[in-house]
Formats: sequence, structure tokens, C-alpha cells
Amino acid sequence: MSYRKHNFSAGPCTLPLETLEEAQQEFVDYHGAGMSLIEMSHRGKHFDDVASEAMALSMEVFEVPDDFSVLFLQGGAILQFSMIPMNLLNPGSKAAYVNSGTWAKGAITDAKEYGEVYTAWDGESCGYTRMPSSSELAMQENTRYLHITTNETIGGIRFSEWPEVDVPLVGDMSSEYMARPLPWEKFDLVYGGAQKNLGPAGMAVVFVRKSILEGCNKNMGRYLRYDIHESKGSMFNTPPVFPIYMFGKVLRWMKKEGGLPAMESRAAEKAGLLYDAIDNSNSYYNCPVDTASRSHMNVVFRLPSEELEQKFLTEAANADLMNLKGHRSVGGCRASIYNALPKESVIALTSFMATFQSRN
Amino acid sequence: MSYRKHNFSAGPCTLPLETLEEAQQEFVDYHGAGMSLIEMSHRGKHFDDVASEAMALSMEVFEVPDDFSVLFLQGGAILQFSMIPMNLLNPGSKAAYVNSGTWAKGAITDAKEYGEVYTAWDGESCGYTRMPSSSELAMQENTRYLHITTNETIGGIRFSEWPEVDVPLVGDMSSEYMARPLPWEKFDLVYGGAQKNLGPAGMAVVFVRKSILEGCNKNMGRYLRYDIHESKGSMFNTPPVFPIYMFGKVLRWMKKEGGLPAMESRAAEKAGLLYDAIDNSNSYYNCPVDTASRSHMNVVFRLPSEELEQKFLTEAANADLMNLKGHRSVGGCRASIYNALPKESVIALTSFMATFQSRN
Repeated sequence: MSYRKHNFSAGPCTLPLETLEEAQQEFVDYHGAGMSLIEMSHRGKHFDDVASEAMALSMEVFEVPDDFSVLFLQGGAILQFSMIPMNLLNPGSKAAYVNSGTWAKGAITDAKEYGEVYTAWDGESCGYTRMPSSSELAMQENTRYLHITTNETIGGIRFSEWPEVDVPLVGDMSSEYMARPLPWEKFDLVYGGAQKNLGPAGMAVVFVRKSILEGCNKNMGRYLRYDIHESKGSMFNTPPVFPIYMFGKVLRWMKKEGGLPAMESRAAEKAGLLYDAIDNSNSYYNCPVDTASRSHMNVVFRLPSEELEQKFLTEAANADLMNLKGHRSVGGCRASIYNALPKESVIALTSFMATFQSRN
Repeated sequence: MSYRKHNFSAGPCTLPLETLEEAQQEFVDYHGAGMSLIEMSHRGKHFDDVASEAMALSMEVFEVPDDFSVLFLQGGAILQFSMIPMNLLNPGSKAAYVNSGTWAKGAITDAKEYGEVYTAWDGESCGYTRMPSSSELAMQENTRYLHITTNETIGGIRFSEWPEVDVPLVGDMSSEYMARPLPWEKFDLVYGGAQKNLGPAGMAVVFVRKSILEGCNKNMGRYLRYDIHESKGSMFNTPPVFPIYMFGKVLRWMKKEGGLPAMESRAAEKAGLLYDAIDNSNSYYNCPVDTASRSHMNVVFRLPSEELEQKFLTEAANADLMNLKGHRSVGGCRASIYNALPKESVIALTSFMATFQSRN
């Protein structure tokens, strides 16, 4: 058993230990091939098996209907901020965005370079502490899609109810990918960076509705076109071999552990333990987020003072509770409790929180 | 010592064995941190050390002058086919391209989406068997840059002499990256995919002249802007952690082995062994490439018939000489002999070639 700290990093982050140990074991000589998987042609049988399994399992584990295709792209969620409007936003149509925090703002900034974009709801006035209800969304005519960030990694909020609108949704799920089921009929496209729930950094996973591809814009470089990646089975160019390989292992682990229902209920349980610890602390710990919008992946909390927060982070690290510092833009503390973080790590944290409070 | 086959793959391809063994050893618990490097925040100390060393060593080993910055991007060389004209090609200026084969054609196709592009020399009529001399380049007024593919992976040709033109060069070096010195004063930008000489797939390495960044176009999504990546030290978004980590190890290996001069002379020696074997075979083996343009990285050759080629490939694989099949677009055989391929592998191949010829 390897030495493991409790890793609450917001991403890249904890991966299932067994996937790391398997990868280590087969790293230099892959299945007796006399070379590493990362030294092999991406068109050869070994990697073809790896990529095909990852594609099939991603559809199966995430319960994706057949009219979607999965794409393994590069450039992170941030390149998708550009590719989405480039591909989907034809002249004469507009795109609606929910401004729910740091990541949504990034998506809006990039989309504005490629067409007419408006903010259907703006969380700035409430300090990005909640998601909107459907009735608050100010939708306009000729809207091609409504973009939502289903979970804001930095603010620690998520859509607990999906928006009810007359246009397709496009969802950035980076920080809660494969942690909850989706109403696929509402979506045209779902995307996110791999480096939270799916595997190592260096890949964006995109699920796109096949029937929209024909209507996508074509006047752009080939790497930027969804239809080209889709028609080549995500092998238009050399793919990110190692992230795909690790993603396949994570998917196998998810399936073995009970798939999406298990991921969802574990997330609820782990988040529940942590929010209970906060709520039952007599306001020593405080979560600034509206209760209904609380993320099941990124739990943000404050202590009575910044001095105590600093002390808390230092002593937590000494107790092997790592990466609990909030994002530099908001401060405070944040525990990211992604799919692969064991429940034991959350229990270790809540226990430390109680002890710290009693001593300070 | 791990079991190793001779791996002539065109990319992804052979990496130095010691880099693989080191990575394996530290894969699950990185330097006693209680987690894998791929589970760590990319803003933390461990990865910051890794990335900083890779950036510094890439400038040192490749002998890059200070007025260039190195960027670790995603999307492969193919996304660069779009980003280069997007960033560099202002209205009113044109871009010149040398059409030297498959990869140059791809670069031209994508560039045409972003501005006025012309072919300064076209190798189609000669079957892409040579590179042009400077006097053959038909340059036009108002040309912003001349794009060259310094080495064509599929055709097996390279520029043995650098073009003498009045405009800056932009070079796709994917398949001979860090295998020869560059006249940096001629270049504004040099780029390539990592998955040949630099490390695993999933990263493009770009060297860009700093003084051109201010004049680059800004009206595009942030991931697509060189100036943004440069101003953030290539950490604008979550970078491709694992490829950067392995690239760092490969750079250390290159430095230890004698740096760029050693890489260049070894490449010449290995290529020489192989071309000699071909040239001294009484035309049993034939290299279709013009002698002056012969690549030192990708050695293409034919046998007297396609049947013999098939037999050659099968028997070579049985002798642990792997991935010698030519690209599906041109057929025949191709031995890719990148930096990390040991000279012993080339000797094993030439010895097999002699034996095969004597028996067939």
C-alpha cells in the first residue's frame, strides 16, 4: 500500500489508487509489448483497444444516449469556450450565458469574440453564492443555446435543478463530470476538462449531439471543427494518449464501484458530512453559499478570521490534509471532494475541523 | 533491464529508457509527497519546479536566444496550423507556404481560413521527393512569413539548407525537433508536436519571438492567443502536466548525452548507416528521395515488390524490429530513427535488411 495523503486539490486531483498502481506496473513494458504505451503508434492495436474501450465506457458509465458522440480533445475546457460559439453560433442567432462565477465569465469573454452573446442571468450582485431558478432567466428571441456552468469550482455552487428553457443547453461540467446523471434531452453539448473526476490534465471530454454537426459552421481550421473530430472517431490527429489511457482506467473503476448512481450517492454523502460539520459548528465554520446551490464537489468555507484560516491550513497540512486553501481570487478554505476522494478523507477532515475548533 | 523491442514508430515513438524507468519509480508517490504528480495542483511547488525546469532546459538544450519564449500548448501541431495565421496574419498581409508534402498541405488548408495564403513552391509535380532551393521560392510582396515544414515525416525529406528569403520563417519542426541547430535569426516562430523527439503525445511546443507578440491579432478566444500564453508563462490554464513532466526528463537526458551537437551527429550517423545499407543493396532497397533532401529522422525505402515489402515487414516484426510500415498514404517502408532510438536498433535493422535480401 502506497503512502497516501488526503488530497483535497481542486484539480488536478486525487485519482483512484488502483488506477495509479496498475499504470505504474505496466508503465515501461506495456503488456509484454517491449515498449511503453506512450511510445506506441496511436494507430496501432494496443492504443486502439485503449481508446475504443474508453469511448465505449464513457458512453456507458455516463448513461449517454446513442445520438451523442464523445470526443477526446485538447486545450482544456478553455478552448471549448471558443469552439462552442465558433461551431454552434451561426449569423443571426445569439447565445445566452448564465454568469455564475469565474468559469462562466471566462466562457462569456471568449464567446463574445465569435458572435452575439448575452447574459441571461448575472450572479455578480449576489456575490456568485447561488444559481438562478428557471423563472429568473431572461431569454431572448433567436437564441441558439443557453450555456451553463453546472458546477462552479471556485464559488462552490451548482445547479441543483436543471434550467427549463425553450433552447438547448450547453453545459460546462468540468468539476462535476460523471458525478450526477444528466437530462440528456435538454442538452446539445456537454464538456469539461478531464483533470477533476476523469483523469490527469491534458484532455477535454466533449459529448456532442450528432444531429447538430451538419448545421455547424465549417469555415475554420480543422482542429476547431467538431464535425471533423466526430467523423474521425476522435483520431483526426495524434490524441492525448496518456490522459485517454488513464481515463479508461478511471471509467473501469467507476463501473466496478457501481457507476453513476454510486458516484452520485457517494458525493451526496461526502458533501453531507462536510456541510453538516460546518452547519453544526455554531458558525465557527461558515459556508457562504446558498443552501440550495451547494456544490457536492467543491465545499467552500470560512473561519472566524483570516489568521485562523491560515493556522487551520497549516495545521491541516501537518495532519496530511492537503490543498484546502480556497482559490486565490476568493480566499478562505475549499475542500474538493471529487469522485475518487475516499469517504475516509472527508471523515478525517471533519474530525480535524472539530478538534481545531475546540482548540481555537 | 526491461524487455525492449526496436521501435521505429513515426510517433508516438521510442523514449529514452531511463526516463521511463524514473517515471515508473516515482509514479504513485512522487518524491514522498503522498500523491502522484498527476494528482497535484499545477500551481503547487512540485509541478512548478517540474515546469520551470522543462522551460529552462528547453531554451538551453535547443540553444534558443533570449528574445524567444517557449510555450507548452495543446492541440498538437495541427492546432498551430490555425493559430499561426490567426495570430500573425494581419489584414493586408499574406502568408507564403512551401508545399513539401502531407503536413505542409495540412498547414496550408487551415491557414487559408484565416487570411491570404499562397504556395511559394509546390513539390507535388516531383512527388514530394525533395525540398526547394531558395532560388525556386516565388515570393510575393507584403508577405508576413514563409512557412516551412523543416522535415516531412511521411515523405522523409528535410531542408538541408535553410531558405534565404527577406521575410521571417515559421517552421514546423515536429519530426526533427531538437535534432539539429537552428539559425534563430531567420525565424519568428518554431513549433511542433512533442510526440517524436520530445516526449509523449498531448503537447505542442512553440518557440515564439517575443517582439512579435504585441503586433499579433487579439480578436479571438484567449486560448488561441500567443500573447496570453506567453504573459502567463504557459500557465494560462491547466497545462498538459504529464507531457511536460516527461519532456523535462527527456531534456535532462539530452543535456547529459551532449545536447544538440550530440543529437545532430548521432542522427547523421544513424541515418548514414541506413542510407548506406540502402545505397549498397544493388537497388534491392530504394529510397525515392532526392539525396540532398534525405531526412535524418524518417528514412523511407521500397523493396522490389509490394509482396516483398509485406514479407519484409512481417519478418522484421518477428525479429523485434517494429513499426517499419510506411504511412498508409504512400506505402512502402519507413524507419523513424528519432533521438532516443539507440544506434544498436539501426544496426539490428541494417543487419536484418542484408539477411533478408540474401534470402529473398
